[in-house]
Amino acid sequence: MTKGERTMDRIRVLVWNENVEERRKPEILKHYPDGIHGALASVFGDEHDMVVSAATMDQAECGLTEEVLDQTDVVVWWSHHRFEDVPQDIVDRVKERVLAGMGLIVLHSAHFARVFQQLMGTSCNLKWRNVGESERLWVVSPSHPIVKGIGDYIDLPHEEMYGEPFDIPAPDELVFISWFKGGEVFRSGCCYVRGKGRIFYFRPGHETYPTYLNAKIQQVLRNAARWAASAVSGERRFGQQDPLEPL
Amino acid sequence: MTKGERTMDRIRVLVWNENVEERRKPEILKHYPDGIHGALASVFGDEHDMVVSAATMDQAECGLTEEVLDQTDVVVWWSHHRFEDVPQDIVDRVKERVLAGMGLIVLHSAHFARVFQQLMGTSCNLKWRNVGESERLWVVSPSHPIVKGIGDYIDLPHEEMYGEPFDIPAPDELVFISWFKGGEVFRSGCCYVRGKGRIFYFRPGHETYPTYLNAKIQQVLRNAARWAASAVSGERRFGQQDPLEPL
Amino acid sequence: MTKGERTMDRIRVLVWNENVEERRKPEILKHYPDGIHGALASVFGDEHDMVVSAATMDQAECGLTEEVLDQTDVVVWWSHHRFEDVPQDIVDRVKERVLAGMGLIVLHSAHFARVFQQLMGTSCNLKWRNVGESERLWVVSPSHPIVKGIGDYIDLPHEEMYGEPFDIPAPDELVFISWFKGGEVFRSGCCYVRGKGRIFYFRPGHETYPTYLNAKIQQVLRNAARWAASAVSGERRFGQQDPLEPL
Amino acid sequence: MTKGERTMDRIRVLVWNENVEERRKPEILKHYPDGIHGALASVFGDEHDMVVSAATMDQAECGLTEEVLDQTDVVVWWSHHRFEDVPQDIVDRVKERVLAGMGLIVLHSAHFARVFQQLMGTSCNLKWRNVGESERLWVVSPSHPIVKGIGDYIDLPHEEMYGEPFDIPAPDELVFISWFKGGEVFRSGCCYVRGKGRIFYFRPGHETYPTYLNAKIQQVLRNAARWAASAVSGERRFGQQDPLEPL
Repeated sequence: MTKGERTMDRIRVLVWNENVEERRKPEILKHYPDGIHGALASVFGDEHDMVVSAATMDQAECGLTEEVLDQTDVVVWWSHHRFEDVPQDIVDRVKERVLAGMGLIVLHSAHFARVFQQLMGTSCNLKWRNVGESERLWVVSPSHPIVKGIGDYIDLPHEEMYGEPFDIPAPDELVFISWFKGGEVFRSGCCYVRGKGRIFYFRPGHETYPTYLNAKIQQVLRNAARWAASAVSGERRFGQQDPLEPL
Repeated sequence: MTKGERTMDRIRVLVWNENVEERRKPEILKHYPDGIHGALASVFGDEHDMVVSAATMDQAECGLTEEVLDQTDVVVWWSHHRFEDVPQDIVDRVKERVLAGMGLIVLHSAHFARVFQQLMGTSCNLKWRNVGESERLWVVSPSHPIVKGIGDYIDLPHEEMYGEPFDIPAPDELVFISWFKGGEVFRSGCCYVRGKGRIFYFRPGHETYPTYLNAKIQQVLRNAARWAASAVSGERRFGQQDPLEPL
Repeated sequence: MTKGERTMDRIRVLVWNENVEERRKPEILKHYPDGIHGALASVFGDEHDMVVSAATMDQAECGLTEEVLDQTDVVVWWSHHRFEDVPQDIVDRVKERVLAGMGLIVLHSAHFARVFQQLMGTSCNLKWRNVGESERLWVVSPSHPIVKGIGDYIDLPHEEMYGEPFDIPAPDELVFISWFKGGEVFRSGCCYVRGKGRIFYFRPGHETYPTYLNAKIQQVLRNAARWAASAVSGERRFGQQDPLEPL
Repeated sequence: MTKGERTMDRIRVLVWNENVEERRKPEILKHYPDGIHGALASVFGDEHDMVVSAATMDQAECGLTEEVLDQTDVVVWWSHHRFEDVPQDIVDRVKERVLAGMGLIVLHSAHFARVFQQLMGTSCNLKWRNVGESERLWVVSPSHPIVKGIGDYIDLPHEEMYGEPFDIPAPDELVFISWFKGGEVFRSGCCYVRGKGRIFYFRPGHETYPTYLNAKIQQVLRNAARWAASAVSGERRFGQQDPLEPL
């Protein structure tokens, strides 16, 4: 789980966690004894094509220094309450990296993360209810690489509900739609390209349920990291240009 | 409900019905005494900006003669079992009209109508179950003209279930997602532009339930007719061209 | 050209202009004697279904007070150099109105307007060259209401060139693609829905050419105002919800 | 260039050529001595992760037997004049394979190939002119895997012109836009998902110009084969279903 040197064939995943809920709700540690970031890191840590590290908001520069981001291909972002505590210059830094080609996987309540809102341009608001009802995530794009190995759906016995309208731009690709016992639906897996970066919003993961221990959820996260890491990098050329043809 | 002369400000809606289920299942006539086409026609018949007529498969050329289509801006299509009884030349005729700008609203089991399949290019297959469970159609594009006046959702106490995957191209605009009591979701309101024509697939309407008597469903149908009729018409120019610039 | 009372059938268009170039380049006044905002306002002023007003950056609150926006259905935005002089709270105010359903037409160099960048989430950067070469805008969505009456293309004898890559999200609908004499192409007419608002980016309009006097360009602007004004308004309901079904 | 056994890490590319133009226009053989299919096959033949074979219309079942397709991951399709000579049952066979996950790369004049038209649902008509003018294909999705290694654009000194409107569904992803010396533009690289299959339409390749010898064009073709082969395979489950929840 230490940050590796860049190798040609390994995707460098950085798990980022607000790391606040763990102190407010100690029951989280029952299923995630190493915190949400620890649980998420272990999803990627054993993959032959990935190296994983973790950062939390309480670190210097929220753990998102230029040096850390230089060694990152995909950020997996979890946050819930202290959105405004990530300074705008750190938000800008991560956003610029995404536009330049870094992948970003935005989880659950991080729909309100500033970096996600500012990449989407919308409020990312939604309906919600946390009573532990069941959720079923249906695959609606069955040939998409993110759903490899998932089958028709994923069942989660207990989750927070998120409901429509979800104030996001229409996804470039819609991969999952959730059904909730209490009567709502939600666009739960949404792919975007912004600049050169690939962004995946994935709904599940309320902190008081052991969602990230579910094998299919883990498979989606790994698939999503591979998808997000496969954008073609390289500079884009902007600005003033000479004509290519006689005028 | 007679077919009107074309006037500048009236949309000419043609309701088309296979008109087979009515004979197989007489209980349909309890809620739709004039047949499904009669019920659908009455949805549009009182609108100041619409004139409506109806055609059924048992008529000459399935009721879809060139003359009828010359007087049609939007076709509302309901069918269920005898998809293969519409001859291919009639399917081609309707399809060509859609590509040239005529609107098409495809209802419920008409996902398997040949003209819809051939406009989509996919099988349009899906999961289904008919046990009369409840359906709730959630609005996911709240500013779309098709959902004007609908609010957050439409509740239907009894409907057939359709489930994902729905083998369609990703909709150009996704307007409704259905929740079903039995645990499934479905992309229930799907907008497409094909050629110059606007196509709206709208899921509800199993023949044994009085779905088309529901006021919100009727509102969606009228909204959809107005949306589908608003494509810009006029010839497109194809074929060999002289250069516009010196070579 | 005074701001009218809201009537049911009139679209209230607000033309907004930075109003800086007019002083830096007096030759602009040869073709736009009333400034760019004056020229744009006259595009809408004679329409039976529109009322138009104008605002400029040098007014109090940049001319974009809450009271002005309360009386506005569509903003037409032109700016070029002083993007950073619109305070962030004014940018936020306009952005919130768009997300709530107000239309926004973004012209030419306003691709760098903060409100557009922040609604898109990307840099909106591009290639450019200003040598007065010819531009031809090709219609690629011939049934879209924005191209009503335009035909196959619009020819502009002299314009600034903008070239790809244009760092925008993939448009929800792509309506125009420009050809430039010097060898470039550009996605010149791009439709977006963000929140409940409709946004149209339209490329032409460098201040030193009389582009907004071109009859087809004027037709596109009027079509775009009608398109942008036709989003369905009304509140969206977010936040905590009771279940709709027994749990 | 013989058809290989399926191995885990090799993409089985099948080049399909009408093989008619070669006899009508012997000058083609100057740049493509082994025919268009020979030239295309050599694009893929040396790749470590691909095996390639070729089939032509003059073979039994147009070279597209079930056995051949069983050994095919991606078909690269070139045709020009004898579209109607591929029997409908062969068209259906290839189309069904695409919907089940096989990749399809459609080249140049094959925009009129029946299998492409029937997957798109539109006429696929366009403007054209063959005077050997220059074409420049601009990259508009710079992070898409299909443009890996291409840079800003591809220059082709002599090509046939294709112009808008191109009667296709709006592409799921638009990758290239062409500029033509004579004044037109064209959506030249268009990605679609239909069923589980990935389809890429790529414009260049008129038979009388040596387009497929261009290194960048070859790179796009190889990138496209890898992209098209990466859809997730496996059965989709349709039809009647038991409820997943109590009713």
